[in-house]
Amino acid sequence: MATAPHPLTQLSVDEFTKARDIIVKLYGGSQSVYFRQINLEEPSKETLIPYLEAEHAGTLTADTPRPARQAHVEYDLIKAEKHEAVRAVVDLDAGKVVSSDTAAANRHPYFTTDEFTQFFDHCLASDLFKDAMSEFELPEGFEITIDPWPYGPSDNEDDPRIMQGLVFARDARKNHPDTNHYGYPIPIIPVMDWVTKKIIRVDRLATGGSEDGLEPAPRGDKPKKLFENAKSAEWVPELLDQPVRTDLKPLNVVQPEGASFSVQEDGLIEWQKWRFRLGFTPREGAVLHDVCYENRPVFYRLSFSELTVPYGDPRPPFHRKQAFDFGDGGIGRMANNLTLGCDCLGAIHYVDGLLSAPDGSPTPAKSVVCLHEQDNGILWKHTNFRTNNAIVARSREFVVQQLCTLANYEYLFQYKLDLAGGITLETRATGMVSVVAIDEGKTSKYGNVVSPGILAQNHQHIFAARIDPAIDSYRDNQVVVEESHGVKKNPKTNPHGNLYEVRRQVVDKATYVDAEPRHNRTMKMENPKKQNAISGKNLAYKIIAPATQMILADEESVHTQRAQFAQHNAWVTGYRDGEFWVAGEFTNQSRFEEGGVGDMVRRGDWFTEEGKPNGVNGSNGTNGSSDNHGQKSSPVVWPVYGFTHNPRVEDWPVMPMEMYQIHLRPTDFFEANPALDVPSKKNEASVLVPCCGKNGVTNGNGCGSVQKDPVAHLQGSNNGADAKAAGANVA
Amino acid sequence: MATAPHPLTQLSVDEFTKARDIIVKLYGGSQSVYFRQINLEEPSKETLIPYLEAEHAGTLTADTPRPARQAHVEYDLIKAEKHEAVRAVVDLDAGKVVSSDTAAANRHPYFTTDEFTQFFDHCLASDLFKDAMSEFELPEGFEITIDPWPYGPSDNEDDPRIMQGLVFARDARKNHPDTNHYGYPIPIIPVMDWVTKKIIRVDRLATGGSEDGLEPAPRGDKPKKLFENAKSAEWVPELLDQPVRTDLKPLNVVQPEGASFSVQEDGLIEWQKWRFRLGFTPREGAVLHDVCYENRPVFYRLSFSELTVPYGDPRPPFHRKQAFDFGDGGIGRMANNLTLGCDCLGAIHYVDGLLSAPDGSPTPAKSVVCLHEQDNGILWKHTNFRTNNAIVARSREFVVQQLCTLANYEYLFQYKLDLAGGITLETRATGMVSVVAIDEGKTSKYGNVVSPGILAQNHQHIFAARIDPAIDSYRDNQVVVEESHGVKKNPKTNPHGNLYEVRRQVVDKATYVDAEPRHNRTMKMENPKKQNAISGKNLAYKIIAPATQMILADEESVHTQRAQFAQHNAWVTGYRDGEFWVAGEFTNQSRFEEGGVGDMVRRGDWFTEEGKPNGVNGSNGTNGSSDNHGQKSSPVVWPVYGFTHNPRVEDWPVMPMEMYQIHLRPTDFFEANPALDVPSKKNEASVLVPCCGKNGVTNGNGCGSVQKDPVAHLQGSNNGADAKAAGANVA
Repeated sequence: MATAPHPLTQLSVDEFTKARDIIVKLYGGSQSVYFRQINLEEPSKETLIPYLEAEHAGTLTADTPRPARQAHVEYDLIKAEKHEAVRAVVDLDAGKVVSSDTAAANRHPYFTTDEFTQFFDHCLASDLFKDAMSEFELPEGFEITIDPWPYGPSDNEDDPRIMQGLVFARDARKNHPDTNHYGYPIPIIPVMDWVTKKIIRVDRLATGGSEDGLEPAPRGDKPKKLFENAKSAEWVPELLDQPVRTDLKPLNVVQPEGASFSVQEDGLIEWQKWRFRLGFTPREGAVLHDVCYENRPVFYRLSFSELTVPYGDPRPPFHRKQAFDFGDGGIGRMANNLTLGCDCLGAIHYVDGLLSAPDGSPTPAKSVVCLHEQDNGILWKHTNFRTNNAIVARSREFVVQQLCTLANYEYLFQYKLDLAGGITLETRATGMVSVVAIDEGKTSKYGNVVSPGILAQNHQHIFAARIDPAIDSYRDNQVVVEESHGVKKNPKTNPHGNLYEVRRQVVDKATYVDAEPRHNRTMKMENPKKQNAISGKNLAYKIIAPATQMILADEESVHTQRAQFAQHNAWVTGYRDGEFWVAGEFTNQSRFEEGGVGDMVRRGDWFTEEGKPNGVNGSNGTNGSSDNHGQKSSPVVWPVYGFTHNPRVEDWPVMPMEMYQIHLRPTDFFEANPALDVPSKKNEASVLVPCCGKNGVTNGNGCGSVQKDPVAHLQGSNNGADAKAAGANVA
Repeated sequence: MATAPHPLTQLSVDEFTKARDIIVKLYGGSQSVYFRQINLEEPSKETLIPYLEAEHAGTLTADTPRPARQAHVEYDLIKAEKHEAVRAVVDLDAGKVVSSDTAAANRHPYFTTDEFTQFFDHCLASDLFKDAMSEFELPEGFEITIDPWPYGPSDNEDDPRIMQGLVFARDARKNHPDTNHYGYPIPIIPVMDWVTKKIIRVDRLATGGSEDGLEPAPRGDKPKKLFENAKSAEWVPELLDQPVRTDLKPLNVVQPEGASFSVQEDGLIEWQKWRFRLGFTPREGAVLHDVCYENRPVFYRLSFSELTVPYGDPRPPFHRKQAFDFGDGGIGRMANNLTLGCDCLGAIHYVDGLLSAPDGSPTPAKSVVCLHEQDNGILWKHTNFRTNNAIVARSREFVVQQLCTLANYEYLFQYKLDLAGGITLETRATGMVSVVAIDEGKTSKYGNVVSPGILAQNHQHIFAARIDPAIDSYRDNQVVVEESHGVKKNPKTNPHGNLYEVRRQVVDKATYVDAEPRHNRTMKMENPKKQNAISGKNLAYKIIAPATQMILADEESVHTQRAQFAQHNAWVTGYRDGEFWVAGEFTNQSRFEEGGVGDMVRRGDWFTEEGKPNGVNGSNGTNGSSDNHGQKSSPVVWPVYGFTHNPRVEDWPVMPMEMYQIHLRPTDFFEANPALDVPSKKNEASVLVPCCGKNGVTNGNGCGSVQKDPVAHLQGSNNGADAKAAGANVA
């Protein structure tokens, strides 16, 4: 490599391979190593901040100290009784392992794509599974298919690493690889021990309705015929029992002068006054590092951290349907390979990632992130009513988009940067709702019947993002909770009763914050050492996040204990290097949120002197902290948000997206509207659609042909104004 | 007119003129008539529903009874002591006034554009105003300009019809009609009696900071020099002190085959499986009537009803800054004339409205509503992880958009229909924040200093929409409040603690409903007489509305009393013909919300037998109703939403939009995802943006040229996959 990579540039293929080779060499062939993940070990803040400061000051030289170039490697040592999960840090320059940690015996790593894929064959080969299946008779030509799922909450702390599968049939007579098996659920769940690779149990499932109990009906004497009256649930166009629409005419986004963004080899992305470095991790997918506006830092790191989906059906073993899609699988590992003309419109740049094969070799993950611009309507407008002159600026957004597929469901995660200094974190949920069998004709209080014999169970999707702020400085940040409160009418300060007060509270120590729209509760990330020259207030970004329902499982349930983050709408914790996981590192089979935001709060980090525990260095564990590891720290904010999803029939067989947005907006960070200089330019490619009965313009003879405006139909008469009808103006 | 118009078609010019002539003739020249408004008197539900039912059944004949064709006319009878505000209904076929009502003496109609315009001249001619202005010395070349404002809450119930003005200076030396006067506020407010057309008072304004009192400082002996250190606040590009951006490349929306919607002369609009009739009223602007999907009714009428903006600065007379932008002015009257290529992208149809001139003649309001399609990202996607085959449908929206300017502020109201049976009601706020003078160097707890000497006061925008549902029937609808609640862990029904319950409560009588995101409180509009064939549940649409803060003014303040609607996140009231106003008809100078949703609830309408008051026909006024006018009725839903707007420096001089969306989504209304038949079609016009350092594709040689993909930069290496780089594919 000619020049040293930027410290935030992802591992090259060479670096990836070198890290792998160092681990292989470590064991010298004496042990079987199963590689899970190899990616950039992000530099510590202590080493990276001086480098970034020099970079932005333009003072980088060959002598500027550089953080060590390191790789993060996760692998299993395969042993007969138990696989040991190791996370090692490899120093690529020194060519050696500099730290290594083996997970406790009761901590279980996520499943790789390779592991998910293996489950099916192990299951089909199992006598236990065959016996369970003999309870049922499938229609002729139907075949078994299985969706592997993480096991959810372990029943016992010392369970081995196990996996469960949801079993379906597919109508192989259709001779189509994508015929929808979700329309044919089979009411059993096989469970596999991942060390022995044996099916250890097959759970039978209750299929009753609201009036039936929690237990499955006893097994009958002869095979039960399944799917006699089932409806197919196809989603691929060629299998639909209806034609696809033909009257939705093409809508193209055309950028005749190309895109307004640029992408560098080292991951640096620039668009308008923004610049950031794009990272990609197997667990989080796209990550934004060192997000700056006009070379002023705004965010040190932006990411999506976790997602848990607890189901509300209490009938065992359905209580084990609780995935953690980042921690049990990984958004980057499950990322879709995006396709030109399918997942975005316009001028698009696709970014690849690198994933690890089981032997540690680098596997390209093609086009897992896409970058493009889109229009979002009017950004600002004002008309001088005296002159009727209007200036209007359109909202252009720069979108970093990724989608992932987790068996039946899909999630879409977007970072959208805008022209007014704002960033929107957007999540969309789509895909197939998770369904189970229900006796035909019955209905259930645990979900909705979305097709005959098919129950879509009630569930929640609870997400967390992670915001590491750097409000005009990497060093000095605080979080403030701001509220607006009415004031009682009184002669002295509020004679007419219209006064309201804006109240501020600095977050002194790690804590959670619940949403309170009644008080317009808003979190602000501020730089208390830098004030706006106009207003005198601290430079800030505020977080606008709609209040959503938190986890509904009983507080004492394992479901809530392992997803403590899902109890509150936001958390503020003390920064520590490498601490990216809202629900802790090991979510797979967890019974408690170990190392998640709950633990981070309990350790008692503080941000101001007022937040410091009574004892020196927090050593007496007062102040709400239950241990004594607290330290003075900088705040990291974790917004938590979600959908309580009680399925609609309309969500079947594939559901229209549900969307959620968090807006990060500058608040006295700039000295005026930063989008004031966005040109108010007439779009020459827009064309007029005439009335009446004609289905729009069919491509005119270019701009400029003036014709009588045939509109004004609301009055049933033509009031005779002129208007311009123009053809498409793009060559 | 050859054929009779549809009962919901807006008045033609001929009808408008006929209605005007009938009123003129009524007074035979004996009285001076000032016309305010002439528009379609919407038919009563009783007469319209049978017509619509026949229309959708395809059984309309020449003999089908038609609702009478009527005009709604509002005018003042100008009398020396008091103008009488009359609202008359004119039967156009019979050629006569069929009903007429004169407003009570203490009710004041809104201001027309004509009236707003007159204020300036009356003010400048006033000696009182001249004297007040002599307190100040403006820089040379500065001129006075005044924004007329409604007076806000009257001080007394019997105040005459009065108006106030916010006074500014403009830098006429710039010789530009749109130089921004909002940068130069002058601390006086003139007040005019609208009957005598005299300035009756000029209020002096406090300009102090947080430590100063509520009263203005005493007037000094000699003129006070204003704006010595003021910064200009220009917003038109040619006056900016910075160049506009040149690196934002064009983004065009091109529809080579035209638009997918059609518009008929009579206001019928069809797009995909939707159809509705577009109305336009001077007060509400665009209204959607008879919204149907696949010929099934969904909404009888959709509209935006009101908007109040109370300011939180307690210093008199700032407490009178509380506009009702629908009731004091009118969104239709103040609607922007939209321009091709400026307010939307793509293929656009513009719709005109008719407004009344003071003499009653029809005045075209050109292009006040625009119709177009837009892309909203991914609507649904699923990838079969076994085959990696993906089907993805894009979300196309059909947008009915209007913008209005209310002096400094602009609002944008959109109805967005989608491909999955959903409708989004979207509001955006932009324009100039309302500002007043503050002594230089001071800061204020009542707002934020956004420029030297300029205070943007804290305020709220509280909006209300009006939803008149027709869930697969015009006749049988109910509203249900649905919540999701956790359940304590217990061995019998919830052994693992993950169960949650969905609770439903039918709204039995008129009431308000507060937001409660902790319980995922959701309102559903249902048809209890029609069940979904799959799920067995009532056909329904649900309302998804983020919880926002309600009015902060003291409950006993006039501000809250005149905007009772703003106290709760939603209201459900009993339908009555012509009852469209959430805060009542007369908001101008109101001291109480007369005839608004508060009164509608108090009259005690009921929807089910359980909701019926104890006495017969509600005559004993129990059950929360304070009067005895209740009746069995069908429910109308009024969502209330808003922003508490504590201004940012970034909101100056023109503010980036703040957006709020209400989603209306089918919930067991269809028997599957209604967007399943949306084609998953590759967009051939999308192009690849290469890495690195090139600013995008500059227009390639058409589709099909295959080149090596130069991406994969994240790894610092090219892993060699192929990708397609295509030029713009639109001729």
